[in-house]
Amino acid sequence: MINLTILGCHSATPRVNAFPTSQYLEINNNHFLIDCGEGTQRQMRKYKVGFSKINHIFISHLHGDHFYGLVGLLSTYGMLSREKEMHIFGPKGIKKATLQMLKISESHANFSMVFHELSSKESELIYEDDRVSVRTIPLTHRVYTNGYLFTEKEKPRKLNMLNISGYPEIDKADYLNIKAGRDVTLPSGEVILNTELTIDPPKTLSYAFCSDTSYKPSIVPIIKNVDLLYHEATFLNDRQDLAKKTKHSTSIEAAKIAKEATVGQLVIGHYSGRYPDTSMFQKEAETVFENVSLAKPGVIFTVK
Amino acid sequence: MINLTILGCHSATPRVNAFPTSQYLEINNNHFLIDCGEGTQRQMRKYKVGFSKINHIFISHLHGDHFYGLVGLLSTYGMLSREKEMHIFGPKGIKKATLQMLKISESHANFSMVFHELSSKESELIYEDDRVSVRTIPLTHRVYTNGYLFTEKEKPRKLNMLNISGYPEIDKADYLNIKAGRDVTLPSGEVILNTELTIDPPKTLSYAFCSDTSYKPSIVPIIKNVDLLYHEATFLNDRQDLAKKTKHSTSIEAAKIAKEATVGQLVIGHYSGRYPDTSMFQKEAETVFENVSLAKPGVIFTVK
Repeated sequence: MINLTILGCHSATPRVNAFPTSQYLEINNNHFLIDCGEGTQRQMRKYKVGFSKINHIFISHLHGDHFYGLVGLLSTYGMLSREKEMHIFGPKGIKKATLQMLKISESHANFSMVFHELSSKESELIYEDDRVSVRTIPLTHRVYTNGYLFTEKEKPRKLNMLNISGYPEIDKADYLNIKAGRDVTLPSGEVILNTELTIDPPKTLSYAFCSDTSYKPSIVPIIKNVDLLYHEATFLNDRQDLAKKTKHSTSIEAAKIAKEATVGQLVIGHYSGRYPDTSMFQKEAETVFENVSLAKPGVIFTVK
Repeated sequence: MINLTILGCHSATPRVNAFPTSQYLEINNNHFLIDCGEGTQRQMRKYKVGFSKINHIFISHLHGDHFYGLVGLLSTYGMLSREKEMHIFGPKGIKKATLQMLKISESHANFSMVFHELSSKESELIYEDDRVSVRTIPLTHRVYTNGYLFTEKEKPRKLNMLNISGYPEIDKADYLNIKAGRDVTLPSGEVILNTELTIDPPKTLSYAFCSDTSYKPSIVPIIKNVDLLYHEATFLNDRQDLAKKTKHSTSIEAAKIAKEATVGQLVIGHYSGRYPDTSMFQKEAETVFENVSLAKPGVIFTVK
């Protein structure tokens, strides 16, 4: 299951009701923080994100509205007496900048911060455990930027207990092998195919986070068929010129990516402050792609 | 006139309704920002502080809850196309840390940041114009820390027009001299004393900001008779042990300082998160000093 909580989804400077980018992702029982603009830790408290659950933070790029909340959050983890390692993924340079700021503020931490600095321009596998893998999605912005693709690992097949009960010769000790996909040979020599004894596992789900970027169709193969795509849409179609100049996307461009990649659901955000009403972002995107939602602080997108 | 707007007044980590230290001070038509915890720029917007009015920022010390909002604020000034110089006063090291973070985030500014790094352990005059002077108040905390004393400059005497009109020989051209305190010699040779021609100027007002610090009676001569004193009170009297250990003050200690310095009004803040109800801070302080108020975000303290 995927639960994506939007903590902040506006671009540039924090305002009273506009919080810079940050998201909390629960996927297959892993808990990730994605981007960390100023005020993220307050938003985490507001939306009751368990601080201690997070062991991995993914920063897309080092612009302030995606990154200036990181030092404060890490400092808070120190005050909360965290002991577990914290893994931080982000562009080259993130380690030095973060540690220098923590040092000058004499912020004491009893936990290790493990920085994974990224510099590749190709999509690469950067994290993997038995439940989830994370790949980078190289984006095109004014500075070095990665999106992230979070994919559930293939799950074991489920036992078809109704069919299994028809074979009293099958012992419980065989269940692990059956789940792993093996056929069973009965004492009589008869082979029972695995497909008769199991049912398909739940579909593996995936989430792609793409911010900030100009329109970049070359990411489509990487995010093909994801269940949930967040793609930035800083501008409406009226300001294609600005989108191009600042290397951001329009709402329609985000929807084009979603359509080409045949994703399940598109969430857009990173709205420029010039638009007081964000509903037009959805309307424009829906002219290209059907299933569009607007990111809003506190909204949770769930995929099962 | 003094208007002090509390932007944040809690200690340690930002929480949903607890904002770290920051204050906006208007004094004799100068506009100062004092301390800048994470989220200060959002609080400035919330309480309608004019960003462009501020040309001087005073940072007491480099702990995160007084300083982590500075980089984001300066970055925002860049996005707002600020051109005026910004003067930043704070402990040695503030310049390097701030500029490095701005550099790595490729934050572009068209304005000069003039850093005034402090390292003296004695009170010193650090800013002065024709309306206000600012002195440091050396405090005792776990790191190098200064409070700040803001004092209005002596104002010119006011013309007593009723008395002046009794001397038709006095010309308007003399008014500037009279305001400056000079006596007038009439053509007849008669000397009219200045006290007859003028009335006393409005009283010069002063504000002292003292955070963070352990109980430090040696600051009393520096802040003697100020009209408004903000003094941190992180703990209630029940945790004197913690106050001592962390080099903070209790509510009663803040009130003792106010009493000894015979200030006009005491404002306390920097409450530890352990106290859900801050009213006890006031009650305890009032056992020592009469005129106590609690800092709360958005509250404005005015002295005329």
